[in-house]
Amino acid sequence: MSNYHKPEAKIVQELKDIANKIRIHSITSTQAAKSGHPTSCSSIAEILSVLFFNTMRYKVSAPKDPSSDRFVLSKGHACPALYAAWAEAGLFPVADLQNLRKIDSDLEGHPTPRLNFIDVGTGSLGQGLAIAGGMAYVGKNYDKANYRVYCLVGDGESAEGSIWESVHFSSYYKLDNLCVILDVNRLGQSEETSLGHDVEIYRKRLEAFGMHAIVVDGHDIEELVKAFHTAATTKGKPTAIVAKTFKGKNFPKIENMDNWHGKPLGDNSEKIIQHLKSLIKNQGPLQIHPQKPLKDDAPLVDITHIKLSSPPAYNIGDSVATRVAYGTALVKIAQNNPRVIALDGDMKNSTYSENLKKYDSSRYIECFIAEQSLVGTAIGAACRDRTVPFVSTFATFMTRAFDQIRMGAISQTNVNFVGSHCGVSIGEDGPSQMGLEDLALFRSIPGSTIFYPGDAVATERAIELAANTKGITFTRVNRPTTPVIYKNDQVFTVGKAFVVKKSDKDQVVLIGAGVTLVEAITASDELAKLGIGARVIDPFTVKPIDKETIVNNIKEVGGRAVVVEDHYYEGGLGEAVLSTTALERDIIIKHIAVAKVPHSGPPNVLLDLYGLSAKHIVAAAQEILKL
Amino acid sequence: MSNYHKPEAKIVQELKDIANKIRIHSITSTQAAKSGHPTSCSSIAEILSVLFFNTMRYKVSAPKDPSSDRFVLSKGHACPALYAAWAEAGLFPVADLQNLRKIDSDLEGHPTPRLNFIDVGTGSLGQGLAIAGGMAYVGKNYDKANYRVYCLVGDGESAEGSIWESVHFSSYYKLDNLCVILDVNRLGQSEETSLGHDVEIYRKRLEAFGMHAIVVDGHDIEELVKAFHTAATTKGKPTAIVAKTFKGKNFPKIENMDNWHGKPLGDNSEKIIQHLKSLIKNQGPLQIHPQKPLKDDAPLVDITHIKLSSPPAYNIGDSVATRVAYGTALVKIAQNNPRVIALDGDMKNSTYSENLKKYDSSRYIECFIAEQSLVGTAIGAACRDRTVPFVSTFATFMTRAFDQIRMGAISQTNVNFVGSHCGVSIGEDGPSQMGLEDLALFRSIPGSTIFYPGDAVATERAIELAANTKGITFTRVNRPTTPVIYKNDQVFTVGKAFVVKKSDKDQVVLIGAGVTLVEAITASDELAKLGIGARVIDPFTVKPIDKETIVNNIKEVGGRAVVVEDHYYEGGLGEAVLSTTALERDIIIKHIAVAKVPHSGPPNVLLDLYGLSAKHIVAAAQEILKL
Repeated sequence: MSNYHKPEAKIVQELKDIANKIRIHSITSTQAAKSGHPTSCSSIAEILSVLFFNTMRYKVSAPKDPSSDRFVLSKGHACPALYAAWAEAGLFPVADLQNLRKIDSDLEGHPTPRLNFIDVGTGSLGQGLAIAGGMAYVGKNYDKANYRVYCLVGDGESAEGSIWESVHFSSYYKLDNLCVILDVNRLGQSEETSLGHDVEIYRKRLEAFGMHAIVVDGHDIEELVKAFHTAATTKGKPTAIVAKTFKGKNFPKIENMDNWHGKPLGDNSEKIIQHLKSLIKNQGPLQIHPQKPLKDDAPLVDITHIKLSSPPAYNIGDSVATRVAYGTALVKIAQNNPRVIALDGDMKNSTYSENLKKYDSSRYIECFIAEQSLVGTAIGAACRDRTVPFVSTFATFMTRAFDQIRMGAISQTNVNFVGSHCGVSIGEDGPSQMGLEDLALFRSIPGSTIFYPGDAVATERAIELAANTKGITFTRVNRPTTPVIYKNDQVFTVGKAFVVKKSDKDQVVLIGAGVTLVEAITASDELAKLGIGARVIDPFTVKPIDKETIVNNIKEVGGRAVVVEDHYYEGGLGEAVLSTTALERDIIIKHIAVAKVPHSGPPNVLLDLYGLSAKHIVAAAQEILKL
Repeated sequence: MSNYHKPEAKIVQELKDIANKIRIHSITSTQAAKSGHPTSCSSIAEILSVLFFNTMRYKVSAPKDPSSDRFVLSKGHACPALYAAWAEAGLFPVADLQNLRKIDSDLEGHPTPRLNFIDVGTGSLGQGLAIAGGMAYVGKNYDKANYRVYCLVGDGESAEGSIWESVHFSSYYKLDNLCVILDVNRLGQSEETSLGHDVEIYRKRLEAFGMHAIVVDGHDIEELVKAFHTAATTKGKPTAIVAKTFKGKNFPKIENMDNWHGKPLGDNSEKIIQHLKSLIKNQGPLQIHPQKPLKDDAPLVDITHIKLSSPPAYNIGDSVATRVAYGTALVKIAQNNPRVIALDGDMKNSTYSENLKKYDSSRYIECFIAEQSLVGTAIGAACRDRTVPFVSTFATFMTRAFDQIRMGAISQTNVNFVGSHCGVSIGEDGPSQMGLEDLALFRSIPGSTIFYPGDAVATERAIELAANTKGITFTRVNRPTTPVIYKNDQVFTVGKAFVVKKSDKDQVVLIGAGVTLVEAITASDELAKLGIGARVIDPFTVKPIDKETIVNNIKEVGGRAVVVEDHYYEGGLGEAVLSTTALERDIIIKHIAVAKVPHSGPPNVLLDLYGLSAKHIVAAAQEILKL
C-alpha cells in the first residue's frame, strides 16, 4: 500500500464531529417528518463523513460532473444521513434538511434523481451495487477516466441474491474502480439479520466471490480512511469494506437494540441530541473540506440524434424474424454512435445481440444468466447519459428483473429493453420460455414506450426510435419469421398506428401485432372471400397506443373490432385498445388472447390451439358482426 | 462416514450402462422432436443414473408418494435425460420418449407437473433450489419424515442470485436432508460460463455460504455413489456435490465444444449412438433396480375446508387497516388447520404476518430480505399439498419474484400471496415502497385469484377463501386504516361484487377498492348533495371480476361508470372493469388511476395530488354525466 499517511488527530476529530452532526440531522429531520430511519442513518455516519470529507473527489457545486467520484446509497432508507452529508458539504442549506419527506421538497423518503446529487433511485433493497457496477464498468472501459464509484450496501439487503450477482459481475470484470462498503449493523427491520455481526462470514463470502475484502470497525475514522486508501490502490479487483457497525450508534439506550427500525426517536430525541452535541469538539465552522475534485478527464458524450447507419433493406414478402432485424438495427445504430452498447444474459445467439459483439466486442457486455445484474448494470451504464444501453433476453425473463425495471422508472433511466421469444409462437420449448406477461409488465412502468413492430422494417425503425426515446423502452420481437410488409422508406413514429389493409366496405377492424398481425391479415383475406370487409390495424406502439387511429377506424366500420394478441388476456394489447375506447359509445370489441398456461408444440399448432390463428379471428369477426 | 460400501464392479458397470442409455434416449428423442438440449442431458447422465438406480429411495409406480425422496431438475432444459431415467426405472414405456415435445404428450420441452413424476415446473433458471429448500424444510420440520430432497443445478444458472439466496436459506436452516448437485459442464448457451471448469471456486463459494461441499468427477460412478452417501450422513448442514462434467460427454467431436447448446445432433446422431452402444456392456434387461422405498413415515395431511376459527368481530365504522385484519385472519385459519404456515421477507411487523409467529413460531418461516427465496420456498412448501403457505411482503416487492410467481402458475402451485403497502396511500416513504403495479402482475398470472378486500371483515373472509382456493391467490391490503363497512356475518364469494350504496335515482356507478372504495363512498355522499345519485360497487375480487354485477348495475344507471384505483393505469382494476364491458354498447367508463411516478408526502395529500380523492371522483362523475 503506497503513500498512505495516517490522518492528523485534528482531522480525525473533525471527521468524528461531522459524523455526529450527520446523526443529529438524521434525528431532527425524521422527527420533523414524523417518519424515517434515524437508527439506520446512525450506523453509517462515520462512513459518510470519511467518504464525503476525506476520500471522494468531487465538485460540491456540480454533483452531476462527469469526472467526479460517484456514490450510490443502496440502502436508500438511510437517505437522511446522505442528505445531511451533502448539506454539510455545502450543496444546500442545512436548514433545508427539515423539509424531509414533505410534499414540496425533493428530499423524499428514499432518494430519487429529482435531487441533483442522486444518480439513481434506491429504496428497493439490493439494487444499488449492480448500478454502481454499471457505472464503474463505464468509467473503466468507456470513459477511461479516473473517477471511482462507491456503493454503500446494508447487511440486511445483502441477503438479496442480486447483491451476489453484482459482486460476481464486478470481480469478473476486474472493476478495481469500484468500492463497496457493507454496513454490518446486525439488525434488520423485524429481527436480527441471519448473519448478525459475523463479519468474518461476510469477508469469506466476498473473497470467494472475487473481491478484495477488508474488515473494519465502521465507527473508527482511522480504520475507514486507511481502508478507502487501500481500496483505491488495489488493482485488478474491486474492494469490499466490511464495516462492523451499530444501528443507532451513539443513541444511548437505542444503540444496537431491537424494535427501532424505521422509527423517529420521539421523546428520546432531545436527550440523545444533547449527548451527540457533547461528543462534538469543534463547535465552529468546519475546519476541513471535501478533497479537491479530479481533473476533468471524462470525455464529452453526445447520445442525441442517433440514426440507423443505413436504411432497412428488405423486399416486401421476405421472411425475416424481427429478432434478427433487431440484431441488424443494433449494429446500424452502433455504427452511428459510439456510445450505443448492448447487454445480454447469455442469450445473445438467440436475441441476435451477438451481432454487436461481432461488430465491436468492446461494446457488448455479457452479464451471464443473472437478469437482475443485467438490468441493474444497464441502469448504471445509462445514468448521467453516458451510454445508450440495449438490454436483451427472452421477453419472459424480463420478469426476473421487474423490480429493477420498476425502480428504473424512478431512476429516470433511459434503458432500452428488447424481449424476444414472446408468446406461444415460440413453440416446443414450452410455457416456461414463452413471454406472455411482458406487455403487462412494461405497460405498468410509468413513462414507458412499448414497440411491437410488425415486420423487420418496423423493427429497425423501432430500435432507432428507442435509442432516441427518453424513459424506459421495450421492443417485443418474435422468434419465428414473418413476412416483410412495409417498404424500406416507410416512416414510423411513436404512437402512430398503421392501417395495413382497408376497403370502403369494411365492417370490422382487426388489430394484431407481431405474429397475430400476420394472422389478422390472413383472416382479413379469408373474410373477404366471405364478402366481409375487415380492416387491419398494426398499432406499432402498444404504449402510447394510437387512440385516434384506432377509435376513428372502428367508428368508420360501424363500431366493431377484434383484437388478437400472443399474450395472456390481462395487461397487454387488448386492454390497451379497450382503454382507448372506454369513453366511446357504440363500440364493441372482441378480445382474443391466451387464457391458460400453454403446452409445448409446434408454433402453428399452438397458435391454433390457443385461439390466435386466422381461423379464430375469422370466427370472432363473424360473431361480433351478429352483435 | 459410516457404513459406506464401495459398489461392486458389476453395479458400477450397470450404472454406467444406464447413463449411456439415458444419453441415447436424449439423442433420439430430441432428434424426433427436432429441438431440445441433448448435450445438456449428456453431462448429467451419470448423476441421474446413480440417483435413480442407487441413491434415491422411492416408489417407481407412485411418484407422488409423500414419503419418497424428491428430485428437482433445476436445469429444466435437460429434461429428456430425466424423462429417460424415469422410463428406464419403469414408470412408463421407453418408447414414449419419442413423443418428446409433441402436442399430445406431456413430455414437454421443459418439465411441468402435467407429468405425475414432476412436482414443480422448471425452465426459468435458478429457481429449483429454492423450491427444493422449501420441500426439505417441510420434510424436516413439518413432516418430520426421512425423505431426502435432491436438486440438480446447472453451472450456468448458478450465476442467478436466487441460487445463492437458496444456498444461504438451506444452510441457515440446517437442511441436512437437502443435497444439491452442481453440474459444472463449463458451457453456457452462448459462450463459456464465467467460471468455466474452476470447480474449486464453486467449492469455496458454497462453503462460504454454509454448505458442505464435495468436488467429484461427475462422470465417475464410484465418486458419485460415495458423495451421495457422504451427503446422506452429513448432519447439520446441506451438502453440495460439485460435479465436474462435460457438455456432450461421450458425444465424439461434440463433447466440450462450443455452439452445441440446445441443438439436436442431426446427421451426427447415428454415429454417436453407435459409439454409445459400444460403451454399454449389458445388452439385456437391467440387472439393478432402484433402491427399496422408504417406509411410509410422512403423515397424512388434510388441507381442505379451512375455516376461520372464529368469525370476524368488528363494529361498523371501526378504523382498521386491512393489513392488520390479515394478521388476525392468518392466526384464525392457523388455529383451524395445522398446515397453515406463513413466510415473510423481514417485513412481518409491517405485514402482520408476525401474528402467526407469535401464535406458533414453528409455523412462521423467516426468509429475510430475499423475495425470490421467499417465493420459491413457499412453492416448495406447498407442493404435493403438504402445506398452505401465505407469503407476505410489501405489494411492490412481489415484483422481485415475478418470475418465480409466473413459474408458480406452471407449477400448479397453490401459494397465497398477501401484499401490503399498496399505492400512494402509504405516504411519506415514497415511490420505491408503493405497490402500483402489483395488480398488473398478479392479473397476468393464469388461473390467479385476486382479492382486494374493502374492509377488515372482507379481509378475514378473503384470507379464509384464499386458503381454500386452488391456484395462486393475491390479497391486496392497505397500510392506512379504513372504516369497517361490512357486518360480521356478511357472506363473501370469489367473483361476487357488492353494491355498497345504491338508490333508485342513480345516474352513475362508482367502482373503487381499498382506500379508493372509501373515497368513492365519500364521493357518492357529496354527489348526493348535488342531487346526483351515484351507486358504489366494491368488486371484492379483481380476478375473477364480477362481470354480471358490474355490467347490470352500469346498465341500470344509464351506462356510465367511474373506476378509481390506487395503482398505475395499466393492468389493474380499471382495465379489469373495461374487459367486462368490452362487448357492451352504450357503456362509457371514466378511469382514474396514478399516471406517473409519485412523490413522498402525506397519504391524503397524495390521494388528492394524484387524482384519487373523493373530490376528483365527484368531478369525474360530473364530467361523464355530460357525455
